[in-house]
Amino acid sequence: MAGSSFGKEFQISTWGESHGPGIGVVIDGCPSGLSLCASDIQKYLNRRKPGQNAYTTARKEADEAEILSGVFEGRTTGTPISILVRNTDQRSHDYSQIKECYRPGHADYTFDVKYGFRDYRGGGRSSGRETIGRVAGGAVASALLKELGITVTAYTKAIGPYEIPTEEYDLSAISSSPLFMPHLGYSKKAEAYLKECMEKKDSSGGIIECIIEGMPAGIGEPVFQKLDALLAHAMLSIGSVKGFEIGSGFSASRSKGSLNNDAFFMDEGKIVKKTNHAGGVLGGMSDGSPVLFRVAIKPTPSISSMQHTVTSGLEDTQISIHGRHDPVIVPRAVVVVESMAAVTVADLLLQNMHSSMDGVRRFYL
Amino acid sequence: MAGSSFGKEFQISTWGESHGPGIGVVIDGCPSGLSLCASDIQKYLNRRKPGQNAYTTARKEADEAEILSGVFEGRTTGTPISILVRNTDQRSHDYSQIKECYRPGHADYTFDVKYGFRDYRGGGRSSGRETIGRVAGGAVASALLKELGITVTAYTKAIGPYEIPTEEYDLSAISSSPLFMPHLGYSKKAEAYLKECMEKKDSSGGIIECIIEGMPAGIGEPVFQKLDALLAHAMLSIGSVKGFEIGSGFSASRSKGSLNNDAFFMDEGKIVKKTNHAGGVLGGMSDGSPVLFRVAIKPTPSISSMQHTVTSGLEDTQISIHGRHDPVIVPRAVVVVESMAAVTVADLLLQNMHSSMDGVRRFYL
Amino acid sequence: MAGSSFGKEFQISTWGESHGPGIGVVIDGCPSGLSLCASDIQKYLNRRKPGQNAYTTARKEADEAEILSGVFEGRTTGTPISILVRNTDQRSHDYSQIKECYRPGHADYTFDVKYGFRDYRGGGRSSGRETIGRVAGGAVASALLKELGITVTAYTKAIGPYEIPTEEYDLSAISSSPLFMPHLGYSKKAEAYLKECMEKKDSSGGIIECIIEGMPAGIGEPVFQKLDALLAHAMLSIGSVKGFEIGSGFSASRSKGSLNNDAFFMDEGKIVKKTNHAGGVLGGMSDGSPVLFRVAIKPTPSISSMQHTVTSGLEDTQISIHGRHDPVIVPRAVVVVESMAAVTVADLLLQNMHSSMDGVRRFYL
Amino acid sequence: MAGSSFGKEFQISTWGESHGPGIGVVIDGCPSGLSLCASDIQKYLNRRKPGQNAYTTARKEADEAEILSGVFEGRTTGTPISILVRNTDQRSHDYSQIKECYRPGHADYTFDVKYGFRDYRGGGRSSGRETIGRVAGGAVASALLKELGITVTAYTKAIGPYEIPTEEYDLSAISSSPLFMPHLGYSKKAEAYLKECMEKKDSSGGIIECIIEGMPAGIGEPVFQKLDALLAHAMLSIGSVKGFEIGSGFSASRSKGSLNNDAFFMDEGKIVKKTNHAGGVLGGMSDGSPVLFRVAIKPTPSISSMQHTVTSGLEDTQISIHGRHDPVIVPRAVVVVESMAAVTVADLLLQNMHSSMDGVRRFYL
Repeated sequence: MAGSSFGKEFQISTWGESHGPGIGVVIDGCPSGLSLCASDIQKYLNRRKPGQNAYTTARKEADEAEILSGVFEGRTTGTPISILVRNTDQRSHDYSQIKECYRPGHADYTFDVKYGFRDYRGGGRSSGRETIGRVAGGAVASALLKELGITVTAYTKAIGPYEIPTEEYDLSAISSSPLFMPHLGYSKKAEAYLKECMEKKDSSGGIIECIIEGMPAGIGEPVFQKLDALLAHAMLSIGSVKGFEIGSGFSASRSKGSLNNDAFFMDEGKIVKKTNHAGGVLGGMSDGSPVLFRVAIKPTPSISSMQHTVTSGLEDTQISIHGRHDPVIVPRAVVVVESMAAVTVADLLLQNMHSSMDGVRRFYL
Repeated sequence: MAGSSFGKEFQISTWGESHGPGIGVVIDGCPSGLSLCASDIQKYLNRRKPGQNAYTTARKEADEAEILSGVFEGRTTGTPISILVRNTDQRSHDYSQIKECYRPGHADYTFDVKYGFRDYRGGGRSSGRETIGRVAGGAVASALLKELGITVTAYTKAIGPYEIPTEEYDLSAISSSPLFMPHLGYSKKAEAYLKECMEKKDSSGGIIECIIEGMPAGIGEPVFQKLDALLAHAMLSIGSVKGFEIGSGFSASRSKGSLNNDAFFMDEGKIVKKTNHAGGVLGGMSDGSPVLFRVAIKPTPSISSMQHTVTSGLEDTQISIHGRHDPVIVPRAVVVVESMAAVTVADLLLQNMHSSMDGVRRFYL
Repeated sequence: MAGSSFGKEFQISTWGESHGPGIGVVIDGCPSGLSLCASDIQKYLNRRKPGQNAYTTARKEADEAEILSGVFEGRTTGTPISILVRNTDQRSHDYSQIKECYRPGHADYTFDVKYGFRDYRGGGRSSGRETIGRVAGGAVASALLKELGITVTAYTKAIGPYEIPTEEYDLSAISSSPLFMPHLGYSKKAEAYLKECMEKKDSSGGIIECIIEGMPAGIGEPVFQKLDALLAHAMLSIGSVKGFEIGSGFSASRSKGSLNNDAFFMDEGKIVKKTNHAGGVLGGMSDGSPVLFRVAIKPTPSISSMQHTVTSGLEDTQISIHGRHDPVIVPRAVVVVESMAAVTVADLLLQNMHSSMDGVRRFYL
Repeated sequence: MAGSSFGKEFQISTWGESHGPGIGVVIDGCPSGLSLCASDIQKYLNRRKPGQNAYTTARKEADEAEILSGVFEGRTTGTPISILVRNTDQRSHDYSQIKECYRPGHADYTFDVKYGFRDYRGGGRSSGRETIGRVAGGAVASALLKELGITVTAYTKAIGPYEIPTEEYDLSAISSSPLFMPHLGYSKKAEAYLKECMEKKDSSGGIIECIIEGMPAGIGEPVFQKLDALLAHAMLSIGSVKGFEIGSGFSASRSKGSLNNDAFFMDEGKIVKKTNHAGGVLGGMSDGSPVLFRVAIKPTPSISSMQHTVTSGLEDTQISIHGRHDPVIVPRAVVVVESMAAVTVADLLLQNMHSSMDGVRRFYL
């Protein structure tokens, strides 16, 4: 199956392995006339680059984006935008260990079963480096959304047990926190917790929250292409994501209709909701409130503690994964979540344009 | 956008409104030679029928399935299977209230914004009756899976605050519990809780869990068509679902790598995992363990308590929704969850057949 | 593969076999607010009905369309439109002959090879009756196009050796000709030729031409979703079609650039072409001229002359196909060509709406 | 619309403009374990390279393929194969003429209408250089087909008025003819004709024929994904193609059923046809005979004779297109036709694997 594409009208197709010549994305369906240059993309890529602080891998990756097509004189042309990032930091490692052992929590075993063999140099196709293509695509989608007044903002809500209650958010703190948390106190505690994890050769999970503001109502298709269904698809397609919830999410399952329903009110001629348990989506379509969702990220599976596992030759063995691994994936995944959300929304915005004959007539007549 | 289809190789396309002439589904891509008759489908539809106990609406719906194509002499022919269920219990209601008011927690408002108007008789396209098409599709998918030794089983894990701990499960209780809970004690408590909700003109949410057993390893595509990503998409496409988690899910976010990784072991010549925090999916592909996921269902939004809302004429108003509504959606949604999971797995099983040249050669040479 | 759908934004999915309970189509992606009733569809279906004159089969088929969803109070709702036509004239034939013999020129053999068995009552899925779904879909697409001032007109250009030169067309004759030919003299000759074919237990092929007028320029996507490529796909997907050409078509292959290029001119402030060798398409996008194409239809393969063939038991045999067959498929295929062209154009018109940011901004801001 | 992809299971997505940094393709869905290296692709690209003889443009284009992903240790991994060809011969032309004038027979005007502006350096996205991506994709598809004993061979059947009758074919001549014609006598005449065209600042069209041998029966889906419908789609998606016919094609329209039907016979235990008017396809599925089709190619629209046209500023003007243009597109298009046919067949072969439960059971049980 051609499974490396996401989106229907605004579509990203990623390609590339962690230790091959490069990583990239083709963005098909971006409308013409959008201002775009390489630095717009670079800014996004830089946010997922490793080596930025103590809690991300020390690997050096240049990750420089080259736009190969689809942009002319600073504007998109309406044709596919191909973006290439060369892989550079490919040390001549000894891969014999992971060539023959299946790392717990990784896709080594499932790749071998499915395809008969695998590119065993690092994660190959299931490496986090694949997300470079997603982030480049997200940069383009975000540029499109920005023109329509829509912003997508993701941040770290929790690291391990340190979860910031919504009422304590300080969004201005996000950029100062090395973990992109909207609360410097929680950020400090989380940093200490991560240091402890690292010392114990262990790793931590966390939660990323994302808010989409400026959404017009009616975006999303009512049955299988629901806005929240596509967001869930987009999020679970990111490696290490184990859960998704929109609005009140799992806590809605413990609530009652009288509490969970968001009443409508008129406010200066506009229909508004005073609460947002729905997370901005009713029946799969945006309702004009901010779209709010969370994703659960599992702890980095690469840890240097000794773990039991098996070899491809079907023998029991033990493995300790050395190398430069993030003790937590969350901070670098923030921009990936944001990117995939932007792609999803851009795609549904384009689809929505031909929902009614009113729109079609206005366009053509 | 043509948004009423789900699946690529094994695809279901539902159609129909709650108060139109009927509801149906076209299943395209089902292989030829699968034994199938109308009663296989009817058995599934009966599980979502209302009026079966005190906790589901008293509406009478015959919901009789007619197979219109794609089956000949008791076997599928490989061509599209069209299934029709006529709508019968369409009382001549007075719809003036919901015609003009936007029910909180429903899609009335978003439909009007998107399409300019809506079929205001009941939920129209966003009615729970749309799931009849999904369940009919799920019945066919399940028949296919059964031939390959794969079973999909969903049940109620929680109703409101009553959540059964995994270690207390008694799966044999599911069929005796009117709420499809795997523990009769919890079921009793949940029933009492629901009665209380009904008396207070209120409703409850809950959690459905689903387990897929007998899965071969390697099913799912590694990037955007991950098994868990498609399951999340499928689940969030069901009305009232607000969250999805696979394996340890959100609790993985609070865990550590050393605890959350599932070690591999050899067991009688086979690779196995002793724990299953991953929920049976590694890198988006099944790992041979049972696939286990949960979905959060919000409380039924239709409640007879008075609620504040607005009219389509943009005036504040109040609404109390009378009629025959489920106090909790969960029990009737169990078979919908099971059906969508079956469709997702059938689809990915077919896609997986051409993953490697070994398989292609074996087929053609 | 789910291969019974055509179109991306405006999509038709047909289902049904000639001798099953019914035939139908689901139209997904039709914008809301289009005026539509059953009689709009019936008018199109009546044009392909058999039994209308001496040159079509004498079978009686009621072919009454029922709209099952997607239309409310005379307008489309934006949700899938499901249309059902019950099969009625299913005489209890003796099918033993075609059950065991592979009819030359039919799909009996290829169906058996692909699927292992087939619905041997008539053509099953490859019957001409499958086009009922296409024509119903075409009726809806045509209603959409009509609102935008676009008309699609197909007619018979040739029956066997009787081909009307373009310069002799009399389009007003089409409705008077039982063969839908734009020239009554040629029609008479063709009718005599068909009578002769029938007497000799033989059949004839022919050519259908189709013109799309009122097309705005710029419709079609420049690479794989070219307007002419999709028209070719649509046409060759109709049973018995063996060729497609646009504009000058095959004669362009014998021409020169200086003759075949259509010069542009200004005419009352508009860009026009005085010739139309291109057939209204440049680089896969409409150029504002009428879109003109032709399709070649093979002779009806069902003839009552004796033919050599083989049995499914792999023995040589002979077959003479009795029954009520059209001596020529062309006249009844005219509305099928028109319908598939309308669906193709409607689909591309919707896709084109998000080609440029100008359009996107105009829609949302 | 994301319109730059072709194929469902074996999918190619091309990107790139003639004068941007490069041209490329992403091939998604190629099974793992197929032997592949850059030289396999280079061989195909070299066949479409210009400058090989007097009848192709003298432009020098290195067109060196780099495989960026999806291949490891000489075998495909099952993940997307990204192939990049840098554009090198980009002279600093004066593009002012074609920037402001719409070249007759080109897509300049339609691009401007659709997208608001265009990359005016050469053909941009509608340049023949886009086919580099297709040919690279075709090289991979051909490698896959070769393993299954299927070969695709295209050649020039006609240049302008010089059409080789089928009964005079000498396939061994193809490689000696600079025009890839299966008859050296016709080739000589066609060469003389082309020289004359060039002297008169004119160009010629022609016909390419393609034969697919070794096809198993049953390939293709019976309704909209018919083998011949997809081939037609593939062919008309190639710039300059104006017609497609399979088997007897347009001449079938002048024939009779008794002549056009291909009788089946038993031959050494196998079902065969002695004639092949069908062109190897019955009901959209391969019938075991060779698949044979033809495409009509229009004369190169770029000619140095003076032509009337208009400017983007809406003024009448004249244009004479200088530069290095092919006097006929046909010889360089032969490998493009072959490539697109190979992609189409590879795609349908993969799809066919899950047509019947027999195949599914054999694979999984």
